Amino acid sequence: MTNRVPDRAGRHELAIRRMGIDTYNEPIVYLRRDSAVCRAEGFEAQARIRLSTQRKSIIATLNVVSAELLDQNEAGLSEAAWRLLSPVDGEHAHAAHPEPVHSLSAVRGKIHGEMLGAGAIGEIVRDVAAGRYSPVETAAFLTACAGERMSHAETVALTRAMLSEGRRLSWPKTPIVDKHCIGGLPGNRTTPMVVAIVAAAGLVIPKTSSRAITSPAGTADTMEVLTPVELDLAAMQRVVEKEGGCLVWGGGIGISPVDDILIRIERLLDFDSDGQLAASVLSKKAAAGSTHVVIDMPVGPTAKVRSAAQAARLSRLMTEVGAEVGLCVEVLQTDGTAPVGRGIGPALEARDVLQVLQCESGAPLDLRARSIALAAAVLEMGGRAPPGAGSGLAAQLLDSGQAWSKFQAICAAQGGLRTPPRAAFQRVFEAPAGGRLSAIDNRRLARIAKLSGAPKAPAAGVELHVALGSAIERGQPLLTLHAESRGALDYAAEFAEEGGMALTIEA
Amino acid sequence: MTNRVPDRAGRHELAIRRMGIDTYNEPIVYLRRDSAVCRAEGFEAQARIRLSTQRKSIIATLNVVSAELLDQNEAGLSEAAWRLLSPVDGEHAHAAHPEPVHSLSAVRGKIHGEMLGAGAIGEIVRDVAAGRYSPVETAAFLTACAGERMSHAETVALTRAMLSEGRRLSWPKTPIVDKHCIGGLPGNRTTPMVVAIVAAAGLVIPKTSSRAITSPAGTADTMEVLTPVELDLAAMQRVVEKEGGCLVWGGGIGISPVDDILIRIERLLDFDSDGQLAASVLSKKAAAGSTHVVIDMPVGPTAKVRSAAQAARLSRLMTEVGAEVGLCVEVLQTDGTAPVGRGIGPALEARDVLQVLQCESGAPLDLRARSIALAAAVLEMGGRAPPGAGSGLAAQLLDSGQAWSKFQAICAAQGGLRTPPRAAFQRVFEAPAGGRLSAIDNRRLARIAKLSGAPKAPAAGVELHVALGSAIERGQPLLTLHAESRGALDYAAEFAEEGGMALTIEA
Repeated sequence: MTNRVPDRAGRHELAIRRMGIDTYNEPIVYLRRDSAVCRAEGFEAQARIRLSTQRKSIIATLNVVSAELLDQNEAGLSEAAWRLLSPVDGEHAHAAHPEPVHSLSAVRGKIHGEMLGAGAIGEIVRDVAAGRYSPVETAAFLTACAGERMSHAETVALTRAMLSEGRRLSWPKTPIVDKHCIGGLPGNRTTPMVVAIVAAAGLVIPKTSSRAITSPAGTADTMEVLTPVELDLAAMQRVVEKEGGCLVWGGGIGISPVDDILIRIERLLDFDSDGQLAASVLSKKAAAGSTHVVIDMPVGPTAKVRSAAQAARLSRLMTEVGAEVGLCVEVLQTDGTAPVGRGIGPALEARDVLQVLQCESGAPLDLRARSIALAAAVLEMGGRAPPGAGSGLAAQLLDSGQAWSKFQAICAAQGGLRTPPRAAFQRVFEAPAGGRLSAIDNRRLARIAKLSGAPKAPAAGVELHVALGSAIERGQPLLTLHAESRGALDYAAEFAEEGGMALTIEA
Repeated sequence: MTNRVPDRAGRHELAIRRMGIDTYNEPIVYLRRDSAVCRAEGFEAQARIRLSTQRKSIIATLNVVSAELLDQNEAGLSEAAWRLLSPVDGEHAHAAHPEPVHSLSAVRGKIHGEMLGAGAIGEIVRDVAAGRYSPVETAAFLTACAGERMSHAETVALTRAMLSEGRRLSWPKTPIVDKHCIGGLPGNRTTPMVVAIVAAAGLVIPKTSSRAITSPAGTADTMEVLTPVELDLAAMQRVVEKEGGCLVWGGGIGISPVDDILIRIERLLDFDSDGQLAASVLSKKAAAGSTHVVIDMPVGPTAKVRSAAQAARLSRLMTEVGAEVGLCVEVLQTDGTAPVGRGIGPALEARDVLQVLQCESGAPLDLRARSIALAAAVLEMGGRAPPGAGSGLAAQLLDSGQAWSKFQAICAAQGGLRTPPRAAFQRVFEAPAGGRLSAIDNRRLARIAKLSGAPKAPAAGVELHVALGSAIERGQPLLTLHAESRGALDYAAEFAEEGGMALTIEA
């Protein structure tokens, strides 16, 4: 029953309608300008609004609708609002002004130079997790904490607060090892090898990975062309129990609900905050139950970490904060100047991974070398090799086929090993002139791969045939575009032809 | 002609549709998830997108639509996007990734503690004015500048940059005087008296005012029940030429396009930034062509300025920055603890204004006293009275009826003096017990006035019958609710009854 007059508490009953509008993770509520609730409560566009059913309540941003999109007594929900409120059929809601968010005074204090106590940080993180912060409020919090304005104590408190939101995994034995890469480098897909090598050595590595948000492939996207990755917690635990390792998508496990919200706004703002980064990575690793973590930190002029000084500062921060939350952390600074391997795109990267694991003669050496270096660090941290001997052990596990066997077993446990798809449409680009390959524009290469259809079209992407610094002959193949449709191929090819192929050849 | 395949430049032609969704001043573009442009460009919800016609181009935030709200080759526009792109009938658009906003690197530098140069500040303000900043980016800029992180030089540069965006008025003679109130106090409607008094004294005061955004009435809303206020620049100039003063809505003049964008985000964040506030007020006053400005600064525990130290700091900043942009500024610190006058709501406040101007015996003394004090400061600054004599002159101009005559003449020039409407529905609330009125909750009073319908229903609001500190007898009328409909009256009354009437009576 709908009812346009207020009930005893002055609340207007609203029928709920799913609008089919995706605003990513920002809940939006749509109301008619001439609805009783807008008129009575004085709601205006972009106001914050609390919408409640008998079972649930959310805070959202209001968009005011003047046209025929809604009935006068309806509340429309964006996809995020729909997920959060999860109304049952025929359920009604009422709208109200939200109570003030108390922790925002702590954020205002921080903006004015005060330090945040652990209690205030806990409250902020709980409010962010509950969706009480609007995007601009979240941006203000992140900005107030950026630029080295977070103390060591604040970073530790933030890590602990993020850790206490969401699920925390525990495992029957220690050590639990893990690896993490800070800042994407196209093709830097070392995780499958590291997991296979260290699990083959008998260590436990319950690895969760993310999907691409702005890049042509995340580790989860690459692994998905090889095996199912959307496992729930119970299935993931069974795989780890059986094989000592897994390679699953982290989104299904629910260990870092706050992190997704903060990272999204940080991406929009495109700025680095060492404290935030440390808290984000370390809280996720601790929540996954890890005890020993190796961090791959690519350093280069277009990488996330750009200078040796920043690398040193961030490494120290991560090591120290890690220790405070019970994590043994080791940071490996790596070359961040050029892509790794040959493929950019889920299936093309999976082919590189398989070549390295199967020790094919043509396997990309840079990907192999990085994988061995990272696995070595994990093996030494986890006590499987004495200092300096990790590298030899990692190479031996790879060359003997033990890592490949372990990888196959993990994939079998996750639901079966698949053969990566091949793109139906390909186009080769040849060198217009000879010379030396003096620069690679990583961002442009990633853009071309995305225009080809990656990561949604898993076979799509860019295959690089030449390495930075190598001599190029006129007419030599430089790269191949892969696409799943003729249209996408033409589109990416046209973009590559018009603006250049992201490769600089010096005569 | 619509065309779903890319043109030579890889651009997909899109038909434009007005969605009828009001997102205040944030331009939103809606595209189908399965549209060619989303698939080819890899656009995701909340991405920034450039939408261009042959004549215009905007940057907007993308919302992805999955349902039947749009055709596959349509681009939907929010109201703000529609205003900015202002498409002609049948015009098509194409979508692209926006080029990076260069001035955001300066914002990132500021976040990391660098100073902003005048050139960088100019670039930021131009980009904000052009709509190139998303709300979260604007929030990051404001946060990075808050908490006394703006130097004197940066504040001056920001004031100048805001001044150079938008229109700047000039007047044939000097001085041009003005007054401004920082931070709302319910009922503090001194502007009509100040303008009438100083114009009666022969000074030129081209006053622009704003409408309510979150309060029950702005000065423009109150003046609108007395006379037309939506004058364009030419009409405003004619009024000022004829009468020496005006009382118009500033939104029609177009002198501060950036300020509206920044203030909106500041309101959402609810924090003060002295530098931003100074730049906002002073750039608007300088753009209006003023040379001498008196600032009313209410100081109190729930006012915008809360302490004597903050008041002193902000007063000094405004005076010094004003001098650098050619403005003579004087700040009057006033009592910010209680509402002024009796009415809260456009027509009720207009009645207070008329009573003071007409020197009725029952006119609210506090409103009269404040008006005289502010007018006195303007008269002394403008050279119409020697120091210390402004107050006497102001009182004399008011008591002699000269101010009231001037006010009537200004209203006549603006289109005619109107009689404020009276609300059809009223309800009196009486004191449930005797005692002393020890506290007034300004925010709650404002809320009740808004629930009654103010400012959209101009006759609606709250009429206060008692003053802070006065003795109250049981059964004495405390306040009267005014509403234009029975429903609104019941709604506001129910709210007032359930949660208390915002007045504390101590036995």
